[in-house]
Amino acid sequence: MIIVVKPGATDAQVKEILAKLDQCDLKAHVSEGAERLIIGVIGDKSRLAPGSLEVLPAVEKIVPIMESYKLVSKAFRPEGTEFEIKGVMLGGKELTMMAGPCAVESEEQVEAVAQVVSACGARFLRGGAYKPRTSPYAFQGLEKEGLKILRKVADRHKLLVISEITSENDIEFAADYLDMIQIGARNAQNFRLLSAVGKSGIPVMLKRGIAETIDEWLGSAEYIMSEGNYKIALCERGIRTFETATRSTLDISAIPVLKSKTHLPVIVDPSHASGKAEYVSPLSLAAIAAGADGLIIEVHPNPKCALSDAAQQLTPEAFVKLVGEIRAISEIIGRKYPE
Amino acid sequence: MIIVVKPGATDAQVKEILAKLDQCDLKAHVSEGAERLIIGVIGDKSRLAPGSLEVLPAVEKIVPIMESYKLVSKAFRPEGTEFEIKGVMLGGKELTMMAGPCAVESEEQVEAVAQVVSACGARFLRGGAYKPRTSPYAFQGLEKEGLKILRKVADRHKLLVISEITSENDIEFAADYLDMIQIGARNAQNFRLLSAVGKSGIPVMLKRGIAETIDEWLGSAEYIMSEGNYKIALCERGIRTFETATRSTLDISAIPVLKSKTHLPVIVDPSHASGKAEYVSPLSLAAIAAGADGLIIEVHPNPKCALSDAAQQLTPEAFVKLVGEIRAISEIIGRKYPE
Amino acid sequence: MIIVVKPGATDAQVKEILAKLDQCDLKAHVSEGAERLIIGVIGDKSRLAPGSLEVLPAVEKIVPIMESYKLVSKAFRPEGTEFEIKGVMLGGKELTMMAGPCAVESEEQVEAVAQVVSACGARFLRGGAYKPRTSPYAFQGLEKEGLKILRKVADRHKLLVISEITSENDIEFAADYLDMIQIGARNAQNFRLLSAVGKSGIPVMLKRGIAETIDEWLGSAEYIMSEGNYKIALCERGIRTFETATRSTLDISAIPVLKSKTHLPVIVDPSHASGKAEYVSPLSLAAIAAGADGLIIEVHPNPKCALSDAAQQLTPEAFVKLVGEIRAISEIIGRKYPE
Amino acid sequence: MIIVVKPGATDAQVKEILAKLDQCDLKAHVSEGAERLIIGVIGDKSRLAPGSLEVLPAVEKIVPIMESYKLVSKAFRPEGTEFEIKGVMLGGKELTMMAGPCAVESEEQVEAVAQVVSACGARFLRGGAYKPRTSPYAFQGLEKEGLKILRKVADRHKLLVISEITSENDIEFAADYLDMIQIGARNAQNFRLLSAVGKSGIPVMLKRGIAETIDEWLGSAEYIMSEGNYKIALCERGIRTFETATRSTLDISAIPVLKSKTHLPVIVDPSHASGKAEYVSPLSLAAIAAGADGLIIEVHPNPKCALSDAAQQLTPEAFVKLVGEIRAISEIIGRKYPE
Repeated sequence: MIIVVKPGATDAQVKEILAKLDQCDLKAHVSEGAERLIIGVIGDKSRLAPGSLEVLPAVEKIVPIMESYKLVSKAFRPEGTEFEIKGVMLGGKELTMMAGPCAVESEEQVEAVAQVVSACGARFLRGGAYKPRTSPYAFQGLEKEGLKILRKVADRHKLLVISEITSENDIEFAADYLDMIQIGARNAQNFRLLSAVGKSGIPVMLKRGIAETIDEWLGSAEYIMSEGNYKIALCERGIRTFETATRSTLDISAIPVLKSKTHLPVIVDPSHASGKAEYVSPLSLAAIAAGADGLIIEVHPNPKCALSDAAQQLTPEAFVKLVGEIRAISEIIGRKYPE
Repeated sequence: MIIVVKPGATDAQVKEILAKLDQCDLKAHVSEGAERLIIGVIGDKSRLAPGSLEVLPAVEKIVPIMESYKLVSKAFRPEGTEFEIKGVMLGGKELTMMAGPCAVESEEQVEAVAQVVSACGARFLRGGAYKPRTSPYAFQGLEKEGLKILRKVADRHKLLVISEITSENDIEFAADYLDMIQIGARNAQNFRLLSAVGKSGIPVMLKRGIAETIDEWLGSAEYIMSEGNYKIALCERGIRTFETATRSTLDISAIPVLKSKTHLPVIVDPSHASGKAEYVSPLSLAAIAAGADGLIIEVHPNPKCALSDAAQQLTPEAFVKLVGEIRAISEIIGRKYPE
Repeated sequence: MIIVVKPGATDAQVKEILAKLDQCDLKAHVSEGAERLIIGVIGDKSRLAPGSLEVLPAVEKIVPIMESYKLVSKAFRPEGTEFEIKGVMLGGKELTMMAGPCAVESEEQVEAVAQVVSACGARFLRGGAYKPRTSPYAFQGLEKEGLKILRKVADRHKLLVISEITSENDIEFAADYLDMIQIGARNAQNFRLLSAVGKSGIPVMLKRGIAETIDEWLGSAEYIMSEGNYKIALCERGIRTFETATRSTLDISAIPVLKSKTHLPVIVDPSHASGKAEYVSPLSLAAIAAGADGLIIEVHPNPKCALSDAAQQLTPEAFVKLVGEIRAISEIIGRKYPE
Repeated sequence: MIIVVKPGATDAQVKEILAKLDQCDLKAHVSEGAERLIIGVIGDKSRLAPGSLEVLPAVEKIVPIMESYKLVSKAFRPEGTEFEIKGVMLGGKELTMMAGPCAVESEEQVEAVAQVVSACGARFLRGGAYKPRTSPYAFQGLEKEGLKILRKVADRHKLLVISEITSENDIEFAADYLDMIQIGARNAQNFRLLSAVGKSGIPVMLKRGIAETIDEWLGSAEYIMSEGNYKIALCERGIRTFETATRSTLDISAIPVLKSKTHLPVIVDPSHASGKAEYVSPLSLAAIAAGADGLIIEVHPNPKCALSDAAQQLTPEAFVKLVGEIRAISEIIGRKYPE
């Protein structure tokens, strides 16, 4: 941490800063610049209450040097994280495909999708059971019943199940049906939920909050990891910007940025990012080309009759075509798409 | 709802749209423009699954005409909402001041603040007991102990207590200590929590999510109100933008916009919006001048020693001065600041 | 400037950094932190090409300590800038009102507005002659003819004239008709135009670019001031965010932020920020309460018949009422509105 | 255009709307919804002054149906635009590579880059001669001298020259040296410059403004095209968001969105978008995978010694490697990279 001292600060004011640091067992390196006095601070900054330096009259600004997360940082595991769920690896050379309907509507619907996606190399079946909706009057999902359907169909096709959980109170029940918990964008900073899934030990896919910086996102992941749960994948699903041509703006650069900052695998969700089926294929290819470890894509046997987000779900035919292109690109960049 | 039909759509494709509408008991008005065919849709649109029209090949775009919220809309109560908590009115002619420390640290600290703020016309004592922090290693608040301290001190000074709750599991306990529940920005779209506080019947102050549009924010309020809880105040606390000179960007325009869209009272939080004590006074005066019904302000007996967000807490002296200016401005715009 | 060195950097790599600094006559202070090596850099950083340190393999990041502007910074003139145009002062105790139609349409229209605004204490008559429009097919303004009308009417009412210029080629002509040049948001980083108005010596009101940070805005002002033109006012007119309820988001916090960073006077434009007449009054009062030095407001004798931006122009009646409220508030905060 | 009428509007107020439309020779279709009266408007809306309907008391909101651009819209040329500059095609099956240093520094520097990029299939040599810099004290480019160097070196290697122009006054001179004019992000809405390059007839690459929506960007392109200049390419170079890990946020979705809205070719600039050389390769591959027609990439013979933006320029070695990967991906998606 660097403290920049205001021009014209008195000696007494500078001493007040140094006393505060000393009181928290922090070492100070004072160096005089051409226009500003600079104090380098060494030691465990968590002893300082937030803002307790900024409030001193001689402090112009505080410049942090280190990130606030530790376990999720690249330095903690420079070789990258690769983990296994029931024999399926995430984060390795092989790409991971998660696919399924936006919302679970019926066993027939899920079965129809499962056939297609399992034939296309997907290892995870996705499907919304608890749907966080902006209007209380919209379809909220089949809830527990939805999870049961997912499990039943997935088992039939030897798929793993991933689905969103929106409350710590659902974790216990979900544990019986899910192989991976999805934390959605709206709960990306619901720290109580993050801690609870951390304690559960169930693998987690953590979506980025719609206005979360990459550093804040890693801070959310740290909440999970600091509870001892190391099986975490990050999912880029678009951020909110001024542009309205797409539902949100897929931050494609987040992929290489994450690869330089963290060891966790990176999944991309082109369906929610764009909100429009016709953009899902180009964005999927772009994500793989940019280095993503996997994709989560919405597929519906008959999008015209879907109960939610019909506009962004691929038809089985479109999905099959897309998988062919992903397979080809994955080889060029040194990855492998599952048989 | 208006459906804009793509140029070159076939008759069969247009019929497909009309059939879909008919199937959902919606009436259609077709009108031919110079360059586009337009279909006006009349009836209860909740019968349509989201995206189920967009997915039809002839649909260029869908233009919603009505907002998705009902109970919170201005039309529901054109005269505005004024409600009472233990004899204190919110939303009327009299402005509401909520003040207190960022985090509850000790009874002595809260007592010192309570003396000042009650003498200055504040009716609510605020203080964080459950602190949602971006790092799992930061001070997380005194939790239950914090609520007990707030209650004890508030009772001594005949103040009401407002504090943030971050999990539905804390509501029952909180009900014994709080007069108003605060839902923070990070839980603004935690719909499970919103429904739960709706069911609790405890008055709620709902902060705006950091990237929530005003319409989405009203949708969040609708979640609470649709459970039968009509005692809701909205709290503007800044939105996330590209500007980093302040912690977030106070959306001052949200005040008149809300006044035109909803009947709910509007509180402004200049402390979190700016993150810097020196900006709290100008922003507070601006909020009152723009028509806010109240303010929530952080005050600490000794900001230099605060355990959290020291930089944004006012000293008691600065708070007293600010209240004098608010009092004067309130009269000019036809409001009244409490004695 | 602080250089943070990557963990694991070799001695040779650190020496490469030090050699680069030495080569540019910059002094280095190396200090070893618990987790990182830090190099403080002292001297004239303009000798370094941008990015020339970031590109070295051992550099993790560069942290600037000083802003890149000098003349516009508060430190250059801590007492604030007050300047005079033909007997009218800007930036002093007295507030400045600039008012007039969005676009100059005819002498009759401008005359009707000028009567009202001059009676209400406005010192500047505004009106668009060169209108930058997002569509090439929209009304582009009366151009030179418009400036002549403004001048003629303003002289009749002893008002000063302010209007937007969009090309360096118009400055010479404009100099004969304008007392103050307005640089619009779309040209906020048109550095050729900024340099040219700087050289002209004509007083300038510089609007903030729609996505300019406050620091970049001050950098734009520095372009003008570095040419020797010190008569500059800054105009906050809203920034682009995700919120669409208003045309742009008025950054009310920019007022106190600018007051802490620069000595230049601050004008606020609530008409363009909100795009809606009914929000102009609350935002105007908020701006004055927050410490703005003046306002620029659109007034039209008959908004229903305006040729541009009808929705955001006040009627003369609404303007008169607003000025009464501004007058009252200005006294509370120690300012004065002109007779 | 659709007019939504306020609930409770009187007959007289609705008649006022209809009269206004009639007066502008526009036809009205009135239809009564369950909760709102809707008026569809048919005819040439440019007869209406902007905001002239919004200002009427009975108007709740105006919903535009058609975009404001015509010539650049997909409908104008559904087959897409392919154009030729001195034998080089843009927008066809073959991808276009533009490469060169950020700023022209010397003939030796440009020559070193030109050798590499021409050997790698680039058809355009890029290089900044007029550099728009946020600080007036930074290196502003070699200006005319820079253009001469570019031309000389390009001719030697049979390359075309593209470079940025920042003022209409430079077009005449530039015409002697450039094959394509680049309009930079900061001048994206400098409509005087856009009109001038339109009149010049010189092919133009139009960068997106840092906060321009895709529709506004197309409006800027319409300015050029409406002057009769049809040789336009659009260049996505990142937008401004809250994320600061990259200089700006590359809007990868803009590629498929543009492909659906316009017939103009789309170039992507990963160097400026990310601001960091290590992200240029993944973003380049992503752009090609998403359907871009070409790339513009910064290459410097020795980035460590560059005079501007050293951090984002590729070394020749990195560029050669990247081109190999682009070549492989281009075939998968049915494109071709030049020999």
